Amino acid sequence: MTWEDVVADKLKRLEATIPQEWRLQAPPTEDSVMDYPKKSGIMTPEEIAITESSATDLVAKMAAGQLTSVAVTTAFCKRAALAHQLTNCSLEFFPEMALARAKELDAHLKSTGKTVGPLHGLPISLKDQFRIKGLETSMAYVAWIGKFEEGNSVLVDLLLKAGAVFYVKTSVPQSLMVCETINNVTGRTVNPRNKNWSCGGSSGGEGAMVGFRGGIIGVGTDIGGSIRVPAAFNFLYGIRPSHGRLPYAKMANSMVGQETVHSVCGPMTHSVADMRLFMKSVLAQEPWQYDSKVVPMPWRQSEEDAIKPKLSSGGLTVGYFNCDGNVLPHPPILRGVATVAEALKKAGHTVFEWAPYKHPFAVDLTNKIYAGDGGTDIFNTLKASGEPPIPNFKELINPSLPKVDMNELWDVQLQKWNYQMEYLEQIRLVEKKLGREVDAIIAPITPTAAVRHNQFKYYGYATAINLLDFTSVVVPVTWADKNIDKKNEAYKPITEIDGVVQAEYDAEAYHGAPVAVQIIGRRLTEERIMAISEEIGRLLGNEITP
Amino acid sequence: MTWEDVVADKLKRLEATIPQEWRLQAPPTEDSVMDYPKKSGIMTPEEIAITESSATDLVAKMAAGQLTSVAVTTAFCKRAALAHQLTNCSLEFFPEMALARAKELDAHLKSTGKTVGPLHGLPISLKDQFRIKGLETSMAYVAWIGKFEEGNSVLVDLLLKAGAVFYVKTSVPQSLMVCETINNVTGRTVNPRNKNWSCGGSSGGEGAMVGFRGGIIGVGTDIGGSIRVPAAFNFLYGIRPSHGRLPYAKMANSMVGQETVHSVCGPMTHSVADMRLFMKSVLAQEPWQYDSKVVPMPWRQSEEDAIKPKLSSGGLTVGYFNCDGNVLPHPPILRGVATVAEALKKAGHTVFEWAPYKHPFAVDLTNKIYAGDGGTDIFNTLKASGEPPIPNFKELINPSLPKVDMNELWDVQLQKWNYQMEYLEQIRLVEKKLGREVDAIIAPITPTAAVRHNQFKYYGYATAINLLDFTSVVVPVTWADKNIDKKNEAYKPITEIDGVVQAEYDAEAYHGAPVAVQIIGRRLTEERIMAISEEIGRLLGNEITP
Repeated sequence: MTWEDVVADKLKRLEATIPQEWRLQAPPTEDSVMDYPKKSGIMTPEEIAITESSATDLVAKMAAGQLTSVAVTTAFCKRAALAHQLTNCSLEFFPEMALARAKELDAHLKSTGKTVGPLHGLPISLKDQFRIKGLETSMAYVAWIGKFEEGNSVLVDLLLKAGAVFYVKTSVPQSLMVCETINNVTGRTVNPRNKNWSCGGSSGGEGAMVGFRGGIIGVGTDIGGSIRVPAAFNFLYGIRPSHGRLPYAKMANSMVGQETVHSVCGPMTHSVADMRLFMKSVLAQEPWQYDSKVVPMPWRQSEEDAIKPKLSSGGLTVGYFNCDGNVLPHPPILRGVATVAEALKKAGHTVFEWAPYKHPFAVDLTNKIYAGDGGTDIFNTLKASGEPPIPNFKELINPSLPKVDMNELWDVQLQKWNYQMEYLEQIRLVEKKLGREVDAIIAPITPTAAVRHNQFKYYGYATAINLLDFTSVVVPVTWADKNIDKKNEAYKPITEIDGVVQAEYDAEAYHGAPVAVQIIGRRLTEERIMAISEEIGRLLGNEITP
Repeated sequence: MTWEDVVADKLKRLEATIPQEWRLQAPPTEDSVMDYPKKSGIMTPEEIAITESSATDLVAKMAAGQLTSVAVTTAFCKRAALAHQLTNCSLEFFPEMALARAKELDAHLKSTGKTVGPLHGLPISLKDQFRIKGLETSMAYVAWIGKFEEGNSVLVDLLLKAGAVFYVKTSVPQSLMVCETINNVTGRTVNPRNKNWSCGGSSGGEGAMVGFRGGIIGVGTDIGGSIRVPAAFNFLYGIRPSHGRLPYAKMANSMVGQETVHSVCGPMTHSVADMRLFMKSVLAQEPWQYDSKVVPMPWRQSEEDAIKPKLSSGGLTVGYFNCDGNVLPHPPILRGVATVAEALKKAGHTVFEWAPYKHPFAVDLTNKIYAGDGGTDIFNTLKASGEPPIPNFKELINPSLPKVDMNELWDVQLQKWNYQMEYLEQIRLVEKKLGREVDAIIAPITPTAAVRHNQFKYYGYATAINLLDFTSVVVPVTWADKNIDKKNEAYKPITEIDGVVQAEYDAEAYHGAPVAVQIIGRRLTEERIMAISEEIGRLLGNEITP
């Protein structure tokens, strides 16, 4: 079989998973497909309401017997089927398995009066790196199609213990190492808000799926923005926890065993409340008993409580920056950062300009780490099937670089450690100057609003944070507006890559595209940064606090 | 200058740091020098009493104004001077700097009525990897002699903030990668209890110094037993905390930047109470604000409290093993493990035989990691001065191995992760079978009691735990006894290295040598394992609980 035959068979099998009654009759021709569920006639009004609810509300209603998991799972399966047909966001779809699980959970609740866990009955969508027994985890590598798993990833096991229902695994870019979602299996995933925009990547399938509300909580991974970029491009919250907070064990990945900059798991949601539900539910399963890389650190309510008085009293101290020294973001993003800073100031918080410390150095060092094996691992996987590399690939991994030698790696790792410590020192210096603790830093996560296809060129706003292993939460802010976000024609690019990014800006083409920022905190500060992000969302009017 | 000239100059400078009145007149001829301080006439009875007190008691008395730091520092400087002259355990000695600091602290307390921190006035000895501004950190590499530091290691800074006084930096084996202390600068450090025995290594200078009570708390490092082995050989408590609990930043080291198996810092003490004083004092300085590798995890009193009811009610569940499948320990060590198991059983605790899981695999994998660069880093440092490698070197690092390639390293790192998780699974399986939590595992730390020179051949009991990144506390148990610990002449070695180790046993030669075990817990369980170790010490009669 040629690799094309393998793909054709895979697509046929994928298509067959969508029941006839959930199939699109006349695909829409509009750029945005966001209103399709309501117009399609495929979903009932109750199903629409369920999918437009919150996870927090759904688990409460299911636990109280006001909703069944079968009803909730059916609603999300239907909407996910639409999402896939409209944006091409799935690699695995298994509604039958999901409904069987939902039925079991409903029966359990009925017979025992008890839920199995805090996520009882809730459908959760997964990036196609998570292994589920009996299913494929191709990760869109043609070479991996047709291998069916004999066990689960650790996070899958723990989510099952917490009561979750799985129904879909979403699309990724070939290799995972780029921030748009395109591969040789399902092709390109598009943004549900505009088919001309990217859904982001590498957890781009999740971004499109949850953005379209084909999912309520989606789990992605992030080694260089892969949770945060699709969250930003789909007007979602997304967290890149620090390494060691959530389990990554037994997942599929490229460059498995690379530990210099770790990929991490994290949820993408419509609210911080749902994000918190996910984090607390997973941590309650004590993931450190299963994955040796997870720090034995339960949900620290004390950390959340410690920040709360500051939130309500204008007591936060927050830095912000809008240029990392490599690339100036497009006007909508500059406005996004300013909007958040203004909202905080207006609420009485202390906002100051943070001087980003040696970000260009960090970006270069991180790129060297990503390309540590000169692309050997990824290219060997491509060779195994004969599929060609996607065009975007060279933007993040430059396969013409030689392998890094062991002593060179140790030197890179020392540089990383030193850089991390210098960054901590910068924070301490500012704290000394201000006489108060710095609670968070607001920054762009990408230089663009939801980007046009093949135009994602600069990863540095994301990757510097991965190198630092800082906690980062993406908060949706606003929408690009051609009437406000005018191109600054007089601007002179500061670097070559800045020139490339600036040339891409077109106020008309980006009109309406989601604009987000990231809220950054020190390592393992998830509870605090989530609480601050929730408050920012509330100030912006984007966050529903239950 | 030849390397020998550099060494001669260094030794001259080192000797000159010992005031005339602290010099030995007639060096003792006995094998043990433990009673020398009392006989020498150099120390006053009060100084003897100070050095034979506990750190917990000393800081309390200094804080209450019942003792001055100058008195305490003088006592330890004198005894350290004796220790060095008798065992050859120092690389840097700086009593003047120490006394100046002590004077300052005394003045501060007098004028403000307040201590500067929980270690106010307490002398602490450091392995010669810690950088102190103005001093050398040669680590016994000839090439590094003559370089004076411009700044402190992070732990040095934090100990100063806590009120510590530094006065000595102790000897290490060339490269740090062996468990006896011998180098081309100061030669060999011997065991104060018997000059024919090793003090252990690589924190062997600390072992001899604290064992002799030239120090009350000594700080070492451990990548393959380097805290635990000298603790064991000198009848001390020693902790190898999990990576990320204590700061290691800005220390000198071999193979800096190697992150596959991390070296960690930890104290060596005469009691768990003193160990706890050290851990709490360092964690109170929030080391994670300075060293990015430190987990933001304060001292967790709740973890200690959680284990306490089990201690007093015979409620512990503890596994033990005495053979790892590679090497059977000598009779004194087998008796040591049995003694601890019996003491726990007698106190009503549940003790069961733990089946060590794939330790030979772990030992081989760890050796591969240590030799990841084929010895390049270490040999380049030797070449820089022309000094030859010490003979013991090849036992831990085999320089004939080729450098590990990047993809091979990733594979090794994946194997490590999988092994760690399989080990966790073994613990869960046993817990399921027993129906209760496993609190700790008792194991040998070396196959021998304090070893005869050049006979340290097997590192596996230590290194498997480094690979797992488990918390481990060494507890002193008893002394080898020629009348009990008879050689088993009928024993057939299970491996080649076992044969080598067995051949070394000689009941006569080891008579009286310190015997210890390690108490092992999962990653980042310092509070619990220390509490359990304290209870074991109490049951054995070796631990003074204040």
